[in-house]
Amino acid sequence: MPAPLVVMKFGGSSVAGAERIKRVARRIVRERARGSELVVVVSAMGDTTDELLALAAAITDEPDARELDVLLATGEHQSATLMSMALQSLGVPAISLTGPQAGITTDGRYGKARIAGIDPRRVRAELAAGKVVIVAGFQGMSVAALDGLEATEPASAVHTAEITTLGRGGSDTTAVALAAQLGADRCQIYTDVKGIYSADPRIVADARQLDVVGYEEMMELAHQGAQVMQVRAVELGWVNDVVIEVLSSFEDAPGTQIREDPLVEQRNKVRGIAHDRNVAKVTLVDVPDQPGVARSVFGPLAEQGINVDMIVQNVGHGGATDLSFTIPRVELAKAKRILEPLIRDLGFRDMTTDSAVAKVSIVGAGIHNAPGYAARMFGTLADAGINIEMISTSEIRITTIIAEDRVEEAVRSLHAAFQLEQPETVEAASALAG
Amino acid sequence: MPAPLVVMKFGGSSVAGAERIKRVARRIVRERARGSELVVVVSAMGDTTDELLALAAAITDEPDARELDVLLATGEHQSATLMSMALQSLGVPAISLTGPQAGITTDGRYGKARIAGIDPRRVRAELAAGKVVIVAGFQGMSVAALDGLEATEPASAVHTAEITTLGRGGSDTTAVALAAQLGADRCQIYTDVKGIYSADPRIVADARQLDVVGYEEMMELAHQGAQVMQVRAVELGWVNDVVIEVLSSFEDAPGTQIREDPLVEQRNKVRGIAHDRNVAKVTLVDVPDQPGVARSVFGPLAEQGINVDMIVQNVGHGGATDLSFTIPRVELAKAKRILEPLIRDLGFRDMTTDSAVAKVSIVGAGIHNAPGYAARMFGTLADAGINIEMISTSEIRITTIIAEDRVEEAVRSLHAAFQLEQPETVEAASALAG
Repeated sequence: MPAPLVVMKFGGSSVAGAERIKRVARRIVRERARGSELVVVVSAMGDTTDELLALAAAITDEPDARELDVLLATGEHQSATLMSMALQSLGVPAISLTGPQAGITTDGRYGKARIAGIDPRRVRAELAAGKVVIVAGFQGMSVAALDGLEATEPASAVHTAEITTLGRGGSDTTAVALAAQLGADRCQIYTDVKGIYSADPRIVADARQLDVVGYEEMMELAHQGAQVMQVRAVELGWVNDVVIEVLSSFEDAPGTQIREDPLVEQRNKVRGIAHDRNVAKVTLVDVPDQPGVARSVFGPLAEQGINVDMIVQNVGHGGATDLSFTIPRVELAKAKRILEPLIRDLGFRDMTTDSAVAKVSIVGAGIHNAPGYAARMFGTLADAGINIEMISTSEIRITTIIAEDRVEEAVRSLHAAFQLEQPETVEAASALAG
Repeated sequence: MPAPLVVMKFGGSSVAGAERIKRVARRIVRERARGSELVVVVSAMGDTTDELLALAAAITDEPDARELDVLLATGEHQSATLMSMALQSLGVPAISLTGPQAGITTDGRYGKARIAGIDPRRVRAELAAGKVVIVAGFQGMSVAALDGLEATEPASAVHTAEITTLGRGGSDTTAVALAAQLGADRCQIYTDVKGIYSADPRIVADARQLDVVGYEEMMELAHQGAQVMQVRAVELGWVNDVVIEVLSSFEDAPGTQIREDPLVEQRNKVRGIAHDRNVAKVTLVDVPDQPGVARSVFGPLAEQGINVDMIVQNVGHGGATDLSFTIPRVELAKAKRILEPLIRDLGFRDMTTDSAVAKVSIVGAGIHNAPGYAARMFGTLADAGINIEMISTSEIRITTIIAEDRVEEAVRSLHAAFQLEQPETVEAASALAG
């Protein structure tokens, strides 16, 4: 039987400083002692990425996306080399590879590239040589288009190669993509929490760790503010059927598996409460109730890369309507600059904004089968005297916008109302749903 | 007439932090306004290299040379991207290239690679596109030798590419090599001093800046402790006949030209006093006076990468001899570990070491024609009561080893004795020599 291949990914807080790197290295050595072949993906150390962004910001307000990608990618180069040194100092053969060296190619969109393919030859050659392969996460290679230089020309392939990064949390995507390409037996995402919880344990004291979460549930949880995993990495795992384990870098304890969950239909219950404070609400008042207005508003925002999340349009009154939507709070100033000139052009009466709001969601694959959940959610918030400003729903999620200063109370009330502190059993879940 | 091509190199202290980077960017913009095409080579910011070395040291006592090179190279990647951003924010099109992207290939010796060649196509393409090309100094690319992966295979060229660094001060070499390959009209090394001086101006108040220094003189000055330029870069300039200008990043003032000096023979005088504190002396006492002993001592040191500088063997007495030599002080502990086992094997009586010594040299292309210089040097030191422990000479240099606590006094005495505070004229020099 060939040795099992395990992809292990360690996030920034797991490799923040020499001591933590050495601790992680010891953990890797333990895994190797079980006879596994190992590919280890690392993020940049601790706050490195933020420090590099601050440096760029001290130089210019609008750093070039290509240059920023080369700058940020150095963070992962550093942690990968240090991890390799730590393993070598423990007597384990290891080698660090940059994203390009690991054969990871991207679609070339700086700052938010998607992985286009992986040429696994170098990784396989290093594994075959008996090494633990450390891959710098968050990055890959695209090819510069240059007049007079053919990208496919052998001698120039190296120096037309461009570094592109995958966006925040992109190391998760690196790990899952490598696991898929290499046909890894396991894909482990090590973090500073023990797994996926029924709610943020810093807010809900009796939040429970979940053993299994379905891909779709995890995507909604991640999208609604649970910061454990990058949404795209979960999506990639789903498409490629990679079982992802989320577990603690610092404790030897079982984590949470993200996988196709055969019990979803039987569970049929709320799995977790997610919340997100990086939200601002924009309301356009008395928007003319005409075709094309929505496009005139959301088109320019999309062009400037602002993700609009929830959109609510109230019933028209006298030929005009109020249009509300949410965006990441960090984008509010930019959105105002884009929208203000439109007020006159499109004939709004006014624009109001509110950055003291937050999202609270209940997520569970069974929600769409059970209308009672919406009522229970809204009733719980009403009982707590929390006003709901906006609502949106999906097949497996109900999201509300509330005042930010009520968010912890809302999360705790909902956690209790849906009895998420209780151990999950299929029987109990069925009983609850019935 | 085509635009002149200028290679400008900025060292670590010139790019230490956002403000200095912006200042250097304004200087580059001024040079560009003169109509030049520009290739700018940058070192890592300030203490970055030392900080990265400290990180590696916190992980392991013996960092792998390959991993260390990838780690250290990130320093130059960072400063190159930031310089490119700074230029762009001033409205100047710019692009940063890593060493491999700039087509710089090396002989693959990690930590001390030599440039094997430069494929200038990408740099030329970017210049042709109207950009200032920022090149990360100190690094180049070698190719990993891997079973089952052909380095010349197009698809794998990128991921068999390995980062190799050129050693301390390697960015000077990057700049001179690029200037030679591109046929640049000028090669400017910007530093935190205004040029090459007749002695360290921090020690000698009336040290004079030299207008022109010959390649050979500069190599001796650099080798004997003047830290302005890397020896190898000067050598490369000499071989390729690149005129190198050393000048201040912070002041608009004429610097020093390093070039073939037609006046050398006429000058025929001491040009500068160099000193170096990174010296330790080792003496092997009562070494058997037999063939092969020197090889048994210096072979193992060379294998471990320890550069032995001066070697003095005293006259034998009774079949044994004392063998003294100097090494970089930072290597002393390592050298002792290597040599101690040899004491018994080779039959020495003892080994003594002294790390409180320093080198002081007089350098000038005319020295070998005028034996009076040695007498004046030794007499000057004797008059100051400074004991000479070792002496070595070359065609254009006389070097002494003295006690470290006398080094400043020695430099000042010699500077005065050879009247180096006086303006240099060919006439004056001839008069002095005569």
